[in-house]
Amino acid sequence: MVSMKAIETIAEMKQARRALAGPVGFVPTMGYLHEGHLELVKRAKKENTTAVVSIFVNPIQFGPKEDFQKYPRDIPRDLAMLESVNTDFVFLPQAAEIYPPGFDTWVEIGKVTERLEGAARPGHFRGVATVVAKLFNIVGPARAYFGQKDAQQCVVIKKMVKDLNMPLEVVIVPTVREADGLAMSSRNVYLTPEERRQAAVLYQALTLAQGLYVQGEREASRIRQQMTALIQKQPLARIEYISITDTEILEELAIVKAPALVSLVVRFGTTRLLDNVVLE
Amino acid sequence: MVSMKAIETIAEMKQARRALAGPVGFVPTMGYLHEGHLELVKRAKKENTTAVVSIFVNPIQFGPKEDFQKYPRDIPRDLAMLESVNTDFVFLPQAAEIYPPGFDTWVEIGKVTERLEGAARPGHFRGVATVVAKLFNIVGPARAYFGQKDAQQCVVIKKMVKDLNMPLEVVIVPTVREADGLAMSSRNVYLTPEERRQAAVLYQALTLAQGLYVQGEREASRIRQQMTALIQKQPLARIEYISITDTEILEELAIVKAPALVSLVVRFGTTRLLDNVVLE
Repeated sequence: MVSMKAIETIAEMKQARRALAGPVGFVPTMGYLHEGHLELVKRAKKENTTAVVSIFVNPIQFGPKEDFQKYPRDIPRDLAMLESVNTDFVFLPQAAEIYPPGFDTWVEIGKVTERLEGAARPGHFRGVATVVAKLFNIVGPARAYFGQKDAQQCVVIKKMVKDLNMPLEVVIVPTVREADGLAMSSRNVYLTPEERRQAAVLYQALTLAQGLYVQGEREASRIRQQMTALIQKQPLARIEYISITDTEILEELAIVKAPALVSLVVRFGTTRLLDNVVLE
Repeated sequence: MVSMKAIETIAEMKQARRALAGPVGFVPTMGYLHEGHLELVKRAKKENTTAVVSIFVNPIQFGPKEDFQKYPRDIPRDLAMLESVNTDFVFLPQAAEIYPPGFDTWVEIGKVTERLEGAARPGHFRGVATVVAKLFNIVGPARAYFGQKDAQQCVVIKKMVKDLNMPLEVVIVPTVREADGLAMSSRNVYLTPEERRQAAVLYQALTLAQGLYVQGEREASRIRQQMTALIQKQPLARIEYISITDTEILEELAIVKAPALVSLVVRFGTTRLLDNVVLE
């Protein structure tokens, strides 16, 4: 058995990459891993010769008032989890390695980044696209794996790869959920026990939307209305947005036409929880 | 002898690339080739197993009032010239192949694109960086070759490659000049015979700057003054800018400190001529 190798510098990662034959599957993460991440790694491992995971809490995708400083971190636990699914390489660069003094190049994606999370978090997707482009260039994957939970991120990364002709495939993996349906997220750790209990309502609302759609409801406003009513029964839940869009450029739909993305953000205190389903 | 292969689609270019072993040297051009381009190809050929040249007049790097439509084109002549220097592949995509409907991803480089040509041509370097990033992803070169004549473009591309960790080396090749010193450029064809005669003054002014520097002059304003006086002796010449900057972030210098980039743009009618020298 060959054990997992941890790498901290870009030069070493590039060197390790050059020594690899066969396709590399890559899973970029911000660490504090959960079952959802491990699903991505398992897919990467199954479909490629080598699986590379990066752990990097990317400062440029956080707004000035966001949770960059307090974003949860636990590298020893992450490494043990990654080893358990036979990860080959873990890339853990320092911020100064990724953004040296004078760094000044950005990947900007237009319209699809201006909506939903992009509207709520200005500059967020510019930060995501830029770091992902860099990581792709460093790791040189044949396939990169992202979780459907961050639906808009999936759309943005796919668009970047297509528009810039990046030589890799983006693979989207279904959301992994807790027993009560809550989508796994590193940020769930911010929830108090009572918030955590009430947070199950996100998936209930998405399931409701799916049910209404299956029953023939096509008016987006009516679906949103019923989701809103359901979520508002939880006293600690604050709806930030409920959105029904197409799945390509994320334009709001008045009349639902499959495939459609139903996505929502609900706040509990200062914690923003995201989730989505696709109506097929 | 294997003859040169011309390729028009991205899919075919990527497929051809995958079949190549050994390093690829890449020369991106806008066609209407001259000796300067052929120098780049010769270097690419010498330092790599395979030389790929692209010919693509990139619409997004031209401003709305610029010369995109009338930019000179002569593909048959270009192909003959490229064959004469043993080019392996010529990539000639259509604009709709590079920018399909909905294209919306951009590579933006900050400060170094805001000055000089970036100030004179807003959006120009965004267009250059974006197409070059795409071409790099399509062609997958180990080395890419650019002419020193477009000095700021060289700085911008090097910065992009460094900041985004692109897995290739940028090679800058000295400017090739006509007998009277005029830098070779596809746009020289726009000049009337009289303008062409007077255009030799650009290189004379740069040579003057170099001479003054060698003699100990360090005041940038005095060097610019003497260059201005020399150029103004040519009645058809209109100076757009004369600039003396560092060679990394292109900040104007009051006191010249090597290495410094002396660059200038002089207009003859509507034709903008660029040139530069580096004071070492």
